[in-house]
Amino acid sequence: MSDKKQKQQKLKARLPRGFVDRTATDIHATNEMVAKIREVYERYGFDPIETPLFEYTDALGKFLPDSDRPNEGVFSLTDDDDQWMSLRYDLTAPLARHVAENFNEIQLPYRTYRAGYVFRNEKPGPGRFRQFMQFDADSVGAPGVNADAEMCMMMADTLEALGIKRGDYVIRVNNRKVLDGVMEAIGLGGDENAARRLNVLRAIDKLDKFGPEGVRLLLGEGRKDESGDFTKGAGLNEEQIQKVLFFVGIKNYAESAAELAEMVAGTSKGAEGVEELNTIGALVTSAGYDASRIKIDPSVVRGLEYYTGPVYEAELTFDVTNEKGEKVVFGSVGGGGRYDGLVSRFMGQPVPATGFSIGVSRLMTALKNLGKLGQDEVLAPVLVTVMDGDVEAMGRYQRFTQALRNEGIRAEMYQGNWKKFGNQLKYADRRGAPIAIIQGGDERAEGVVQIKDLIEGKRLSGEITDNAEWREARVAQVMVPEAELVAKVKEILAAQAEDRRRAKGA
Amino acid sequence: MSDKKQKQQKLKARLPRGFVDRTATDIHATNEMVAKIREVYERYGFDPIETPLFEYTDALGKFLPDSDRPNEGVFSLTDDDDQWMSLRYDLTAPLARHVAENFNEIQLPYRTYRAGYVFRNEKPGPGRFRQFMQFDADSVGAPGVNADAEMCMMMADTLEALGIKRGDYVIRVNNRKVLDGVMEAIGLGGDENAARRLNVLRAIDKLDKFGPEGVRLLLGEGRKDESGDFTKGAGLNEEQIQKVLFFVGIKNYAESAAELAEMVAGTSKGAEGVEELNTIGALVTSAGYDASRIKIDPSVVRGLEYYTGPVYEAELTFDVTNEKGEKVVFGSVGGGGRYDGLVSRFMGQPVPATGFSIGVSRLMTALKNLGKLGQDEVLAPVLVTVMDGDVEAMGRYQRFTQALRNEGIRAEMYQGNWKKFGNQLKYADRRGAPIAIIQGGDERAEGVVQIKDLIEGKRLSGEITDNAEWREARVAQVMVPEAELVAKVKEILAAQAEDRRRAKGA
Repeated sequence: MSDKKQKQQKLKARLPRGFVDRTATDIHATNEMVAKIREVYERYGFDPIETPLFEYTDALGKFLPDSDRPNEGVFSLTDDDDQWMSLRYDLTAPLARHVAENFNEIQLPYRTYRAGYVFRNEKPGPGRFRQFMQFDADSVGAPGVNADAEMCMMMADTLEALGIKRGDYVIRVNNRKVLDGVMEAIGLGGDENAARRLNVLRAIDKLDKFGPEGVRLLLGEGRKDESGDFTKGAGLNEEQIQKVLFFVGIKNYAESAAELAEMVAGTSKGAEGVEELNTIGALVTSAGYDASRIKIDPSVVRGLEYYTGPVYEAELTFDVTNEKGEKVVFGSVGGGGRYDGLVSRFMGQPVPATGFSIGVSRLMTALKNLGKLGQDEVLAPVLVTVMDGDVEAMGRYQRFTQALRNEGIRAEMYQGNWKKFGNQLKYADRRGAPIAIIQGGDERAEGVVQIKDLIEGKRLSGEITDNAEWREARVAQVMVPEAELVAKVKEILAAQAEDRRRAKGA
Repeated sequence: MSDKKQKQQKLKARLPRGFVDRTATDIHATNEMVAKIREVYERYGFDPIETPLFEYTDALGKFLPDSDRPNEGVFSLTDDDDQWMSLRYDLTAPLARHVAENFNEIQLPYRTYRAGYVFRNEKPGPGRFRQFMQFDADSVGAPGVNADAEMCMMMADTLEALGIKRGDYVIRVNNRKVLDGVMEAIGLGGDENAARRLNVLRAIDKLDKFGPEGVRLLLGEGRKDESGDFTKGAGLNEEQIQKVLFFVGIKNYAESAAELAEMVAGTSKGAEGVEELNTIGALVTSAGYDASRIKIDPSVVRGLEYYTGPVYEAELTFDVTNEKGEKVVFGSVGGGGRYDGLVSRFMGQPVPATGFSIGVSRLMTALKNLGKLGQDEVLAPVLVTVMDGDVEAMGRYQRFTQALRNEGIRAEMYQGNWKKFGNQLKYADRRGAPIAIIQGGDERAEGVVQIKDLIEGKRLSGEITDNAEWREARVAQVMVPEAELVAKVKEILAAQAEDRRRAKGA
């Protein structure tokens, strides 16, 4: 009974589902990646601006609080004054609020970027988290499509700066106005058809996933998936479906542009959309980006409702093996588009804007697959072991450690229970420490230290048969006067670095 | 009526109180600062680990949800499964959860660091926000005070790495066990006096703010502040108060150590605490940190209840002028201590740990005061102006822009309404653009561009009287063939950099 009570009282250490801790490797990789992305954005004239994680729920726009279920999709709570606040679910809605709030101080056009966590109160799944990082860039007060063209070029340059080769990525561009033109051409124009249009967009967005046949079903009556779940379709007739499928099936925009222009002729915005696409194509070509890097592709939809013009998506085109062992194209790592209405919700005037968002974890997964992140280069610290626990001995160990650190060498003094020396070496091993420093009472009396090369001990002789001389020059343990400790450690670390260089070169 | 309705419908762009947007200058300064801190921590053998922003409320420990008022101090909400979740209010409680949850995989001792936002659901005020950044370092599974000594040295090295000179900071160290010994010596030992002890600690913590006389009142009957508000005191008698004030008034630890040891002799932990303080003193001295950098100072308390041994605080000792125009010592920028009980709340075994936290914004304010953050070094982009809007002209402007960017030069093409050229120059001016690129129809026909040096135009002649030759060599506007654009821009930027160098040197 008493036992049971104790068990009940002990707290269980666990995280809410959909949230994860991040490892050192992940953090180093993210920092490296974010620094490279930031460099490209800065070069494009963008400056950082960050907003807090909370916004008033109404300012987020898309998800207005429902009095029964204010948490639908977002994490919401009421403030002391009973106003609903939510954690941001993307970085675009907060930027729109920021611009509107500071409109008189901001110099337009306003090029900004930001990396930060966003939150979705949704069912988590494999690779789907409730907190994740986005990296956005936006131009606000930029009415022309040259701003959209610039976004596409910046996405391309960003991917290349991260080490992704030409041919391994493509930026695909479409225009919501053309899509709207097609909708109007098939009789789905007007406010009264907004819901049906959204269903059509959602169906098109599934082209990568289900192929043309799957999309045909979703545009028509509906589609039953393998598990038997039925998704109701958009209810288009055969002629309507044909037109939509022609549009999203366009592989070579230049060849099909005329037919497309004809289809949307007479609609309110279709022709304008086609012209905008042509202009974007001309601008990026002029700046040296051919269709293998930035491609007009009418199958791009982008789910969000707030897009009003060009939309674009960064896709990685190389194959990866998925969890089922199948080869699949890696796919989208980010995208965006023009959202001319998002800022003006707060304003009495139109404020055109365009921007895109990169999914940081997803892009990081891609870069890891390609071996493009040097996260292994953080060297573990040199371990100063502890042989005696009196203050004088401890003081010396501490002094050795600081002397190494003062020379820029990662170093740590053992801080566990020092009485079991085996534990210290086991710790050094698990930690991957390159060197251990050892000083017992005899050595202390003589003013010397033992320096143990832990990597040397681990080297497989097979790796270095053609480097016999090099190996000869290395010994696994040396004793030096205390005053020579730092120099000797530097020498061994340099030799280890040379080993790694040779191993890579071999 | 209709007007009124429209006004009501228009959303107001505003942030919940206590939350702020961060400017480019702040973000650059934070990044610079965080990178330098990270470098020191890495050198000390610490690795990054991050936890998500949400934790289960019970895992946070200090603030258990009250069914009436679950938001007391923290931002909390219920998850789908009706469990209370909260946004973290510090980075220590989540680390304790992380260690307990992954105890079998973690190699102890475990040195880690993390920077991140924390949230307090409190009344905001000047300089007090509900979201702010902390930067923590912790050693878990480190029972000895050498780990605490290391923390103090790391804090000192961090402040120096940020450019704070010796003499401008001090790390002050105390020990809760000594404090507990003093409490026991004045008859406040035992669980039954926990609440009174806390009141005494809170009173001592106000020493900097109210001085010894103010603390005397808070230790006794209570204190009335200028506004007439009365704070009830801890209710000690005169003899008790004397002993506490002797303790916290110790200025020279070495001189008073014997008297202190005598006072706490016979208490359960007092003597142990004094010995720990002595050991820390010996270790840091041995490693080269004298009392001007790391000082034993019994007036340090640190408010948090979970500390169990050494506590330490980083204080900046130089004067700043406060908002009332008074000269005051800058004061604390961070601190921490030993929290042996925080991880073991989740475990069946003790897990000793020590760590500290830096208040990032507060430290940044200090560094700004000292001129130690090079945030002005981000150069504004070169502006490629737009004289014509046809696709061919736009294509060329875009090509110029990309050519500059490809050479690593920050550049942007104007994206506002290009038809008013004056607006473009006004934009360049407000943006601080160093150079404007201009190409009208005539220039285009000839294949040339105008390059306007915008800084040259602004230079005050007084600044450069002694540099006559240098000035002669510079002209405010030149025309070059398109092919020479990048080279010429580089040349002008280099000349401007030389100007800045000379201006600094002068």
